[in-house]
Amino acid sequence: MSNDRKSIADGSLILLYFDLRRQWLIRVERDRQFHTHKGFIDLGLLVGRSFGSEVKSSLSYTFWALKPSTHDLIMHSARKTQIMYPKDIGLIILKLGLSCGSKVLEIGTGSGAMTVAAAKAVGSAGHVHTYEVRKEFIEMAERNLKRASVLEFVTIHNADASAGIEGSEFDAAIIDVGDPWPIIPHVHKALLGGAAVVSFSPTINQVEKTTETFAHSGFANVQTVECFIREIRADTGKTRPATIMVGHTGYMTFAQKILRLQEE
Amino acid sequence: MSNDRKSIADGSLILLYFDLRRQWLIRVERDRQFHTHKGFIDLGLLVGRSFGSEVKSSLSYTFWALKPSTHDLIMHSARKTQIMYPKDIGLIILKLGLSCGSKVLEIGTGSGAMTVAAAKAVGSAGHVHTYEVRKEFIEMAERNLKRASVLEFVTIHNADASAGIEGSEFDAAIIDVGDPWPIIPHVHKALLGGAAVVSFSPTINQVEKTTETFAHSGFANVQTVECFIREIRADTGKTRPATIMVGHTGYMTFAQKILRLQEE
Amino acid sequence: MSNDRKSIADGSLILLYFDLRRQWLIRVERDRQFHTHKGFIDLGLLVGRSFGSEVKSSLSYTFWALKPSTHDLIMHSARKTQIMYPKDIGLIILKLGLSCGSKVLEIGTGSGAMTVAAAKAVGSAGHVHTYEVRKEFIEMAERNLKRASVLEFVTIHNADASAGIEGSEFDAAIIDVGDPWPIIPHVHKALLGGAAVVSFSPTINQVEKTTETFAHSGFANVQTVECFIREIRADTGKTRPATIMVGHTGYMTFAQKILRLQEE
Amino acid sequence: MSNDRKSIADGSLILLYFDLRRQWLIRVERDRQFHTHKGFIDLGLLVGRSFGSEVKSSLSYTFWALKPSTHDLIMHSARKTQIMYPKDIGLIILKLGLSCGSKVLEIGTGSGAMTVAAAKAVGSAGHVHTYEVRKEFIEMAERNLKRASVLEFVTIHNADASAGIEGSEFDAAIIDVGDPWPIIPHVHKALLGGAAVVSFSPTINQVEKTTETFAHSGFANVQTVECFIREIRADTGKTRPATIMVGHTGYMTFAQKILRLQEE
Repeated sequence: MSNDRKSIADGSLILLYFDLRRQWLIRVERDRQFHTHKGFIDLGLLVGRSFGSEVKSSLSYTFWALKPSTHDLIMHSARKTQIMYPKDIGLIILKLGLSCGSKVLEIGTGSGAMTVAAAKAVGSAGHVHTYEVRKEFIEMAERNLKRASVLEFVTIHNADASAGIEGSEFDAAIIDVGDPWPIIPHVHKALLGGAAVVSFSPTINQVEKTTETFAHSGFANVQTVECFIREIRADTGKTRPATIMVGHTGYMTFAQKILRLQEE
Repeated sequence: MSNDRKSIADGSLILLYFDLRRQWLIRVERDRQFHTHKGFIDLGLLVGRSFGSEVKSSLSYTFWALKPSTHDLIMHSARKTQIMYPKDIGLIILKLGLSCGSKVLEIGTGSGAMTVAAAKAVGSAGHVHTYEVRKEFIEMAERNLKRASVLEFVTIHNADASAGIEGSEFDAAIIDVGDPWPIIPHVHKALLGGAAVVSFSPTINQVEKTTETFAHSGFANVQTVECFIREIRADTGKTRPATIMVGHTGYMTFAQKILRLQEE
Repeated sequence: MSNDRKSIADGSLILLYFDLRRQWLIRVERDRQFHTHKGFIDLGLLVGRSFGSEVKSSLSYTFWALKPSTHDLIMHSARKTQIMYPKDIGLIILKLGLSCGSKVLEIGTGSGAMTVAAAKAVGSAGHVHTYEVRKEFIEMAERNLKRASVLEFVTIHNADASAGIEGSEFDAAIIDVGDPWPIIPHVHKALLGGAAVVSFSPTINQVEKTTETFAHSGFANVQTVECFIREIRADTGKTRPATIMVGHTGYMTFAQKILRLQEE
Repeated sequence: MSNDRKSIADGSLILLYFDLRRQWLIRVERDRQFHTHKGFIDLGLLVGRSFGSEVKSSLSYTFWALKPSTHDLIMHSARKTQIMYPKDIGLIILKLGLSCGSKVLEIGTGSGAMTVAAAKAVGSAGHVHTYEVRKEFIEMAERNLKRASVLEFVTIHNADASAGIEGSEFDAAIIDVGDPWPIIPHVHKALLGGAAVVSFSPTINQVEKTTETFAHSGFANVQTVECFIREIRADTGKTRPATIMVGHTGYMTFAQKILRLQEE
């Protein structure tokens, strides 16, 4: 492990970097060549060298073998659906207080981008239980989780959470499905008292209905936010924001479980 | 620990919630009363009860004893300076890949809001080394770190990082000072190869100079973003965004350490 | 008139400017003193001098007698309600094609901020017919229109437009009321074929219902936008956006009147 | 003219509308067919009919002959450069107080998008003098101005404004060139006292230098803003903002001419 922090091994994941627009998340294999428009790279040459190392392509272009972050794992996930963006996921981690050892419930695995980030946040001392009804997503999520080296502390349930949730005393819950409303009472039961939940919704109508459902299902502190991110092209003497930006991914509605006197 | 997840103990931190605008991060003490405009609350009554519990004030108003998240620890920090916001900190955690066990370097402790979040992310298996030259901030940061129960895996250095940084092989670095430029070469030396760094700057001029300095000091993948957050007032039939929002906190410039062939 | 473009007369409106945060829209009167925290200004001294002139207060501070723009007339309007902002009004003028000679219909005069801007855009060759049911607003709007010297080409109707609209062949229509839906068919009748209308709404629920109503009432090209504006504090070497911004005023839903074959 | 407001003539400009994504600004000509993926339209059939009329394509699809607005003239301009957007232009018109009869100076005609909007705002009683050094832009701007029927109250100067500006007593000025600084003193001389000017700049560095130059060249009330616009996809039950938005066009720096006592 300590070694893996410094040096690239056979099997290590790297962020192969050419420039801001051309970078790839790939696995180093001793006999693999990686082909780009700037020539191919002999990945075997990287084994045993430090992360951050320079490597030349067959056409003598310079590439760098950077260390991938959770952000890269999310943005380079294989996906079939719209995923949550790091701007959203980062805020969710803080608002839900996900940290080493947390036990997290996720409804709606999708491609597993949020699952990867949650698993990274809770680490091997924690666990993520994630529900997904669509079989075709489970396979993709598993691949993304395995690549991120977090599959061992994630349990994927191929089941419909609106029929009930296994287990209890979760520290936090993340809901990312089109119709969260029938699931919310089950989530309430599964959470620890005072614990936080987020529901992610692309439409404002979902937000309204989710807000109402939280308020009527034993949650307080119900708040919705949206998050924007804008790139700045910093270049001395001609610095300006990027022309195009993502204007919308989804709204995040947060809430916390409350217990009436008779429920304790 | 497991107990602390469920029940409020003498000494537990709670988020005492009245409504969206009135909530306080306070420590439960057996003989303490907490006074609000809606009457006082006898905190001793909460000891032994679940997080999420209802509690009545002396004037019979209902309050809730919620579990505080990292977000609450940040937003309710005692502070003397402008702090980074959760929208920024969440993104930084993902972009830097902070996770359980990471060894993090921070330059510019300030009030310790980012320090708390980094420490929460790396957990007791990790460590945060943070530098602050101004003595008056160190005391405040210590209080904030202690309250968040992370002081034992943080080391505060009352020293000027531009004179050099102790230790090496850091997994990531966070710079939050007005003049990061003389510090960047030291940060380069202290980081592992391929590792990520962020510099947080309120002005666009700092961003330009930081971008240049990173590019000339052995870093690649230099990118700057700004992040916005907008509250939505969800209320069935009359949902609208909040009138006022925070338009700016600071820019985040990210980079990753590279090693030229001769440096490895 | 030509004189009024250059020189301040007894009765001229000026923007008295001290600094970015302290500026007032006032009428010059020969015997009036205007009092500020930086001393008073003898307005009579300005009569006959050029717009843009320097004037000293009784405490020897420098003020400037600038020419007010439509923007200033809007932002310094006496108001009882939330007004539309210049960022919204400017876009409306372009999307509705308001220009010299246009005949405009407005439903919901309010304090008259939009009315002033529409009247400025159409000029004395055009006309604005505006409807307002609440008597207390009419008086205020009249004062704002008079101050802007556009009252003579505005007709204020103290009537409920949902009971019908006088006149026809309007070039464009602006709706700024909480419940525009019963009014929309009347607006359709009053507009020229192909002409544009906008409805301004603070909530997203109004937008949904307005969009539907437009689509079912003989309108096409139905589009909604929201507009944000952010101040930049430009200061060489320490340039940054303003910390606080307006996050929401309202949504603008635009549409154009269509005629089915049998209606022409 | 009055007729032109109601009925489509041979030579009228229409906005041919199919849906939100497919609309064209075209000139009706008696013998012209307009071809689309949904069949062709015999434009001659529209002559004498009302704006807003329905028209069937050869494949029996329904199109609408809407009235184009200033917004459409801008967005459908032939262009060789980045143009200012209606969100920016609308605000400029209000901040500069452009209205019927104003005499406006523009430096940097470009494709003429701003010129068209300024000319529409000032009408035939006003005039726009616009400077452009690049011959290839002048021809394009002329075509755009002619199409918008405003060429007769615009004078295009194929000259470098930094060598001096013809005429004086302008009510307002618009600067849209990469290096406005040598031009600003000439603009000062050409403006009436107290009058407003805007400089449009894509980079923040231009903003800094322009702000400084205004402050040292006899201008006060120097302010910079940026404007964002976001589309909302209103659709009952599934309303959400558009995924992609324009994140940046340029910054607008406004100022007003002042006269020191000795200058009057």
